[in-house]
Amino acid sequence: MSDAPLIAGVELGGTKCIAVVARGTEILRERRLPTTDPATTLAGLSEALAEWQAEMPFTALGIGTFGPARVSPEAADCGQILPTPKPGWTGARVLDHFADRFAVPMAFDTDVGAAALAEGRWGRARGCSTHAYVTVGTGIGIGIVANGQVLHGALHPEAGHLRVRRRRDDAFAGVCPFHGDCLEGLASGPAIAARIGGDATHIADDHPVWSDVGAELGELMATLILTVSPECIVIGGGVGGGRPALLDRIRDATAGALAGYVPGADRAALETLIGPPGLEARAGPMGALALALSTLD
Amino acid sequence: MSDAPLIAGVELGGTKCIAVVARGTEILRERRLPTTDPATTLAGLSEALAEWQAEMPFTALGIGTFGPARVSPEAADCGQILPTPKPGWTGARVLDHFADRFAVPMAFDTDVGAAALAEGRWGRARGCSTHAYVTVGTGIGIGIVANGQVLHGALHPEAGHLRVRRRRDDAFAGVCPFHGDCLEGLASGPAIAARIGGDATHIADDHPVWSDVGAELGELMATLILTVSPECIVIGGGVGGGRPALLDRIRDATAGALAGYVPGADRAALETLIGPPGLEARAGPMGALALALSTLD
Repeated sequence: MSDAPLIAGVELGGTKCIAVVARGTEILRERRLPTTDPATTLAGLSEALAEWQAEMPFTALGIGTFGPARVSPEAADCGQILPTPKPGWTGARVLDHFADRFAVPMAFDTDVGAAALAEGRWGRARGCSTHAYVTVGTGIGIGIVANGQVLHGALHPEAGHLRVRRRRDDAFAGVCPFHGDCLEGLASGPAIAARIGGDATHIADDHPVWSDVGAELGELMATLILTVSPECIVIGGGVGGGRPALLDRIRDATAGALAGYVPGADRAALETLIGPPGLEARAGPMGALALALSTLD
Repeated sequence: MSDAPLIAGVELGGTKCIAVVARGTEILRERRLPTTDPATTLAGLSEALAEWQAEMPFTALGIGTFGPARVSPEAADCGQILPTPKPGWTGARVLDHFADRFAVPMAFDTDVGAAALAEGRWGRARGCSTHAYVTVGTGIGIGIVANGQVLHGALHPEAGHLRVRRRRDDAFAGVCPFHGDCLEGLASGPAIAARIGGDATHIADDHPVWSDVGAELGELMATLILTVSPECIVIGGGVGGGRPALLDRIRDATAGALAGYVPGADRAALETLIGPPGLEARAGPMGALALALSTLD
């Protein structure tokens, strides 16, 4: 790795941000900040990068951000945060902030698009032509890589807000402020907390709430398989990551929804098609680094 | 167009097949055959091509087929029909049949993937980086183009079989032999015929069945927008094509399902985002020609 290029990455999360500089996959410096207002947050991140740059001149910068964000390089407002309930961030010119300070190639994408790219480069989805990364935590986010490129389209995937089919016996109204019982309103951390009146991260694997959540996430998997036919779906995040029992429920529900229709996606195949991240909790900063590397390919 | 290359195309449909030879988009010869057993059908098509080749030596061949089919060029069984209820066609080596007879570059894809490519090259989706083509007829099929390439993944889209959310007051059991009330089981031509006990192509625009069908197709649109974020969705096929009133119902339902969440996809934007084919009924053979041209790019 000693001849790998020096690269830098920024992950802009809903509650915290991380800046890193790395040689290949080896992270040499890291700074963590709380996400507050855009001016303070972005200044803190670029200060860290500027300090490191003198000592370790990085050759590219990748930026992964919470959404919605304008990620199409052709758009006039590329690099900006789109209308968001997060105070002060609507219209924040994230990419411009860094482009004004560092004269290196930059790539800007969603945090989940970046994580999908990292899982394809170094993680569970290595060698896949088309794969997806799903984070299930405070929200539900999806990144899709097709033919080696993060899929953007007009905006970027927002599949956390899919209206999945409801189970007949599940009457929970959901917590999404836009849709009520869309997937995020039914199966995100806050949704699970609202269902049981407690913290979603400390629920035993045999709690009945996982039947509904597993079924609803299975509907998302079936939707992804029927729509973009990924060779691999990685499930991470505070709720989705590190829960083998939930993964099994999700696989069962996926197979049930597909009902044997899709060649190569029966229950046995889903054992490898759907799985945990290869990069574990490092997907965020590694995603930003994968974006940086994509500018040098 | 006189300096455009001579190209050939084959469309393999569920009930009929078409072979064409063209200069650019100008079709010079065309032959139509019923789809019977693979040996007879493929021989009829290659016979037509062989006749034309002597007189008009075409430089590439595109083949668009009903699915499921193996379309990944890397796969050992690329060019074959996958397990299908259509008698005799499971395992049919379609691409090999033509590759054994014609020494020109060939591209093989689904009929809907090919139609999506043609709508991107010459039709409604010109200039889009990511778009979708949806046919609603005997079945419901979807082709997606992302960054100029037909999206394959592990198989190809099969989004006709999505389990869309049901309307509470719609108790129709559906006609899909695999899933009952998946989208195709609810909103395809045979499904509509089963709902009303008559032919779907002769139903007045104000018939109540269109409320359910429009709502269900709107769920598909919302799913596509939330998953692959197309800049344009083209709706064609025997049921979906040429019905402005149905398109309006679909747009209304899509806007309802998205509930204002997706920037750039409000009801006014859907007026242009979702629309009829630019190529009308020619999408099939034009799709095959677009595939042929893709080998020359």
